[in-house]
Parts: sequence; C-alpha cells; structure tokens
Amino acid sequence: MKIKIVNATILDVENSKVLEKYTVCIEDSTITFVGENDNLFSQAFVADRIIDFEDDILCAGFVNAHAHNAMSLFRGLKDDVELQQWLYENMFVIEKYLQPDDVFYGTQLGLLESIKSGITTNLDAYFFPKSIVDANIKLGTRCVCALGATLYEDRYKSLKEEYISLPHNNDLVSYMAYAHSIYTIDTKGLEDTVFIAKEFNLPMHIHVSETLGEIGDCVGKYNKTPVQLLQNIGFFEHKCLIAHSVYIDKDDYDILNQHNVSVAHCPASNMKLGSGIAPIYSMLQANINVCLGTDGAASNNSLDMFREMYLASLLQKVNLHQTDIMSAPFMLQMATLNGAKALNLQDKIGEVKVGYKADLIRISTKDVNMIPINDYYSNVVYSAKPENVKMTMVNGQILYENGKFADFIDVEKIVFECNKAIKRLKNESKI
Amino acid sequence: MKIKIVNATILDVENSKVLEKYTVCIEDSTITFVGENDNLFSQAFVADRIIDFEDDILCAGFVNAHAHNAMSLFRGLKDDVELQQWLYENMFVIEKYLQPDDVFYGTQLGLLESIKSGITTNLDAYFFPKSIVDANIKLGTRCVCALGATLYEDRYKSLKEEYISLPHNNDLVSYMAYAHSIYTIDTKGLEDTVFIAKEFNLPMHIHVSETLGEIGDCVGKYNKTPVQLLQNIGFFEHKCLIAHSVYIDKDDYDILNQHNVSVAHCPASNMKLGSGIAPIYSMLQANINVCLGTDGAASNNSLDMFREMYLASLLQKVNLHQTDIMSAPFMLQMATLNGAKALNLQDKIGEVKVGYKADLIRISTKDVNMIPINDYYSNVVYSAKPENVKMTMVNGQILYENGKFADFIDVEKIVFECNKAIKRLKNESKI
Repeated sequence: MKIKIVNATILDVENSKVLEKYTVCIEDSTITFVGENDNLFSQAFVADRIIDFEDDILCAGFVNAHAHNAMSLFRGLKDDVELQQWLYENMFVIEKYLQPDDVFYGTQLGLLESIKSGITTNLDAYFFPKSIVDANIKLGTRCVCALGATLYEDRYKSLKEEYISLPHNNDLVSYMAYAHSIYTIDTKGLEDTVFIAKEFNLPMHIHVSETLGEIGDCVGKYNKTPVQLLQNIGFFEHKCLIAHSVYIDKDDYDILNQHNVSVAHCPASNMKLGSGIAPIYSMLQANINVCLGTDGAASNNSLDMFREMYLASLLQKVNLHQTDIMSAPFMLQMATLNGAKALNLQDKIGEVKVGYKADLIRISTKDVNMIPINDYYSNVVYSAKPENVKMTMVNGQILYENGKFADFIDVEKIVFECNKAIKRLKNESKI
Repeated sequence: MKIKIVNATILDVENSKVLEKYTVCIEDSTITFVGENDNLFSQAFVADRIIDFEDDILCAGFVNAHAHNAMSLFRGLKDDVELQQWLYENMFVIEKYLQPDDVFYGTQLGLLESIKSGITTNLDAYFFPKSIVDANIKLGTRCVCALGATLYEDRYKSLKEEYISLPHNNDLVSYMAYAHSIYTIDTKGLEDTVFIAKEFNLPMHIHVSETLGEIGDCVGKYNKTPVQLLQNIGFFEHKCLIAHSVYIDKDDYDILNQHNVSVAHCPASNMKLGSGIAPIYSMLQANINVCLGTDGAASNNSLDMFREMYLASLLQKVNLHQTDIMSAPFMLQMATLNGAKALNLQDKIGEVKVGYKADLIRISTKDVNMIPINDYYSNVVYSAKPENVKMTMVNGQILYENGKFADFIDVEKIVFECNKAIKRLKNESKI
C-alpha cells in the first residue's frame, strides 16, 4: 500500500520547527519521503491513496512509556479512598481474579482509547503478557511488552520460558524484562530478572521511588535509596527504563546518568495517588532522558498523552514558580522522541523521517478549541484534546480516521466483553 | 417549546446521588418535571420533542465563575516566556489595540468552545461589556457580565453610565460590579466600584491574591493582606466573588467567612502562570464557598471545566499527599452548584430541579474513554473530556447536539472574524 499525505504541517520535534505545506510518502510500513509539496519526487510518487491534510498538523504518534492497558477495566473503581486501602483492599484483591481473556479484552479497551488520543506505541506491563501481545497484534498497535515478575508469586513464571513462548517475528512487538518493584519482588527475583535480561539482550523496566513510603522502607532495610539498591543488584548494567521516580535525589541522578537510565514520568497518576511531584526539570537539567507514561486507567483515569504533556509542563511551572521552563516544543519531544529513546526504538519511531516506521497522527487545526493558531506547539500541548486527533496510523496502517476505527476493529465486541469481564470480576472479588 | 428527556441518568450533586431511568420535562426555559420514567405525569406530558438519553448522564451545565472569553484570540500567544514579560510586554500591549468587534467575535469563539465542553454560564470580565453581552445573547448562553474598572485608565467609563446603557430585561444576562485588582486600580477606583455596586445592588468581582508578588507589594504598601485591604475599603459589604486567591492565610479565611465571600479557583491558570497552588481544601474546610473558573484562554489555554475539576481535585491530592479528599461528587458540585451560588444564581441554575432554568448537558456513557462505568461521578470528573458532551442546552434551547452547533450559530463567520482580528492585532501591536 502506498499512501501520500499532502498539505501537512509537520511538527519536527528534534529541531522545534514547523514545516508547512509538506508531503509525506509512505510505502507499506515505512516513510519513504518527507519534503515540500512541490518537490518533484513527491509529485511523481504514485499512491494508492492521497490524503489531503488541509494544513492540519502531522506529527509522530505518541509513545506511552508506562502503561497497564488492561487496567482500563478498573477505571473509576473505588476512587477517592485512602491509598493503601485502595491498593491492598481493592486493586490487589480484584486483580487476583483476572483471567487471560480479561487482559486480552481489557488491553484492547485501553488501546481503543489510546488510538483515539494519538498513542501509537505502548510499553505495557501487566499480567498475562501473551494476552497483551495478542491484543496489540489484533488492533495493529506497536507494543513493548514488559514481561516478568509481577505482584503475585504464584503467577511468577520463569522469564525465560515466557519469553521463548511469545511471538518474535512481528514488526509491532518487542520486549523488556520487567520486575514490578523493589517492594513487591525480593532481591532474588530482581537478580533473576537481570540474569535473563542479559541472556536475551532485553532492556529492563521497573517502578522506582514512587512514594515516600517506598524510600523510607528501602533506606530502613538496606541503608540505600531504591536507585542505589538497584545499581547494586546490577539492574542498570543493562539498558533500563524506570517508572515514576518521584523521589530521586542528586546522588541518584549521577547513577542514572552513568548508566543511561531513562525515566517514565507519570504526572496524572502521581497526582491522583497523592505521590508527589517528580523533579523532572532537575532530571532533565542533569541530562537524564525523561519521557511520559499514563500508568493504568485505574489511577489516571484516562489514557491521554495530551493530558500527560500538559500536566508534566504545568506541574514544574507551578512547583518552581517559573513560566519559561518545560516549553511546548520540548513537551512534544518528551511524548514522542524521548519515549522512543527510552524504549530503544529511536531508530524506528518518534520522528517523521525517511526510513522510519509510519506511526503518524493528524491533529486538527480547525476545531474551535484550536483556533486561532498563534503557535502550533502551544496549541498541541496546552489546548489540544483527544477529540482533535483526526487520524492515527501505525506501521503504515490507518487505525482511526475522522471519528471511526478501521473496519477490522470490532469495538462493539471489545466493549461487550469488557463490561462482562468487570461484572464477573466484581462479583468474584466482592469489590 | 416542550421537550421531554427520557432514560436519563441524573447526577444529583446536592445529594451525591445517581438517579437512573429518569425523565425530565422542560417547558420553554424551565424544568417542569424531574422523576422516574414510569411516573404518570411524565407519561402524560405531551412534548414537541422527545429525546432518549439511552442512559447517558444528565447534569446541570457547568458554571464558569471566572472567564475572559475574548482572550481566546490570544490562545498560545507567547507561551513559555517569563511571567512579567508575558504580561507587560505582550498581553497588556496587544490588548490596547482591542476594538469592540474583536471582543464581540472573540467572546463568541470562547463561547463556542465553552458550549462544546458543557459550560452553560460564564462570569465574563473583560473590556467592552456591551460586546460581551451581545455575544452571549447572540449565541444563547447565560452570562454574568462583570463590568467596571479594568486595566487602562483611558477605558474607565463610569460604572453607572455603563450599567444603565446595557440590556436589563434579558433572562440570560445579569451583572456584577468589577474592579480588576488592587494593583491595577487605585483605592479611589475601588471605592467608586463599591459605591456603584451599592446603588444598583450589584454583587462584586475582583482578582485577589493571585501571586506572591501581589501579597508582598500590598503588605509593603498598606501593611495589610489584599483581603484585609479590600475589607477596609468596604468591598465585602456587598456580596463578593474573588478570583484566584492562591495566597490566602487563616486570618483572611475569617474575613471571607464573615462576609460570605466566594472564591473562584482557577487551577489551570495558576499552574501555567507559575502562581502557586491555592489552599482550597483548607478554604472548604473553613466553609468558604469555592467554585471553579477557567480564566482566559491566553493563560489556560482551554475553556474546559472537565480539566478544571480534574486539576482542582488532583492538585490538592498531590499537594497534601491525601487521596481521599476532593472527591468526584464534590468536584462536580463545585463546577455547578457552587458556581451558581457564587454568581447569586442558586435559585435559578446549578441543579436539575423543578422550577430551575433548563441549563442541562448530556455526557456520553458509551464513548470508549467512559467504559466501563464503575462510578458515574468518577468517570465525569477524572475521565470525561469535552468530546463526551453530546448535548448542551441553555434556558431550554439546545445550542449543541451530537457534534453540531444549532443552525442559528454561524461558526464559520465567527472563526473568519477571529482569524482576521488576531492578524490585525498582531500587526498593529507588533507582537
């Protein structure tokens, strides 16, 4: 399939530039041309379909670097209760009743929302990795499946066995070795994760320093910060992405920097769970690669990277009383390029570039909340909402366009199965 | 015109209840029946139009208690620059070139966005009150026009003359006496505002304690907090609504309480301008009526009460490290009932109640970001976006339904005039 997009206003995040009246040519999954409309090559390119963007914005799809998509099933379940009660008396209880099919459909529900809001790649860390991978392949979304040790010992399946059993020849899917956290996985479990990551050359993922409680317990037990503890275990010897990282001190920065560790900042979740405001402006000044994640819909309660960009910028502005930091072009870079780097996909996605995968979105410049356009980047980061996404393409395939999902996506079935699943889960768990 | 809405899921914010399978009857501008579907009266009610809500949410329209709608023209203009530079070298400069027609069309642009996101009433404080009133009457939205002293002496027209010249027999329009702030209006101007408010029995509106700079200057000059200064001037002897109020101390609480002063909290603006986090949880504990406002799109950059509810709740949660405060039902109350109280419209709007004006919105329960519904209030406050608003009705008239504005609203013309206006303003002001 050959697609030609004309009259696009490209947001080139690497150079903070706006490229007007541009054409992008796509052959199968790949971008083969990016240039001005009147370029001779693009004019000669014979496409199966020409899409006129009518000056709408074209940018790389959002990379959600920390998600638990199937938790969309638990959206709004027991909000506004005390954190430990929410976690231990509700979430952890109901999750014990999850079946592979619940995760298969729950992940798809999360993906529907993601696709509509312009997310094209998710790092998804949850139970039943096969269900996650299958859901992404079914809907055509790009996925980094974080597999490994999760909360419950009885679900701990050796990473090796699990990894080998999963599909390895799908362009959309890659893997990370995952341990949930230092407080739910013991040192042996963390060491095993490192060992397997090395054997299969997998990058790593873990929740780190999310709450003051975690820091206090860790320092009390090991006389180390969580970052120091993980360094000791060898967790950072392989490429690593850590999530949340609300309480990171300056000594931690040096460790993260030294090992090229990326941080997935999850502002919505950190606010809703009362965790705190991660010092991402400082981390960025210290040259740490910070990207964005939604976390699960149980604590968010959306999967909306516009909201994450907005919150990430405004939280630093209000916390540091500075208006001229965390600029709009940089926020869009965090949501795309930085995410791609964190997931080791920086040679494949995150930019609108020849040779890159065609993971692209169209954002309206005509909706009333986007008018006038005094600044394209400002409008995308501070004004845009999921409703302004008019097209989402992953790997050259259009998954969503003008309010409609592609024909092969059975929205009704997904919603039906999810409503059935959450009803059963609530009955079984008595939540 | 008689309208009957059936199969509505009403969110009754006064009692934090969910009323399923309800019918609402509307005659002209007024709600005449609220009850279960199978009630005999509702079944006998002969309507010109029956709207089946198919279990979608029905709630009172949002009350935006602090807006400058025409500032939508400046959306995204010079973001991410230092605050004083933004204000004094950009906003205040370009505003000097505003003409009445710019405000007429700019206000309508703001109103289009408001209507789409479920705002049915705005307190609008800006230049050229007649343009504001005309814009609201033209689009059919409810408006409290705050009129009076603004930033520029040469635009100061006596409140009395201005008030008398404006329409006084329109159900949609009411007025407040307005002084911009203690740092832009001198003591004489503030006293004049009080005097006129008393003469015409107008409630009052003013920006108070928005930044630390304002507090420092005020204490230095008068040895009083802005709240104490305004009390001294007699500003609170009349019903008053103060906006922002980021820096309010416990002595101020007593003054506000004593005079039944309401506070319009503007979290998005306070974050973007790096002002700070207003202590609204404490204010609410002290029994102060706190409602919500968007401020202008220049500092927001949206007019979206879903975002304000969300931010208002999450900012307190993260700031106080408490997850069980600022609950979803209460946030919806802030966005409706508390706003109505602050604008002295509590006998007319803010609830779905017989005898009240039919300012009602429909929120989808079927969009993928609203599924499943484990809790209606949670979904509205933490998950919903403007796109989920399927109908907006003001004073019994449907202004927006299923993605389309009413026929009498000329969106194209408004957008054309706004794009023309901002182009001219930028040229003239060299911004």
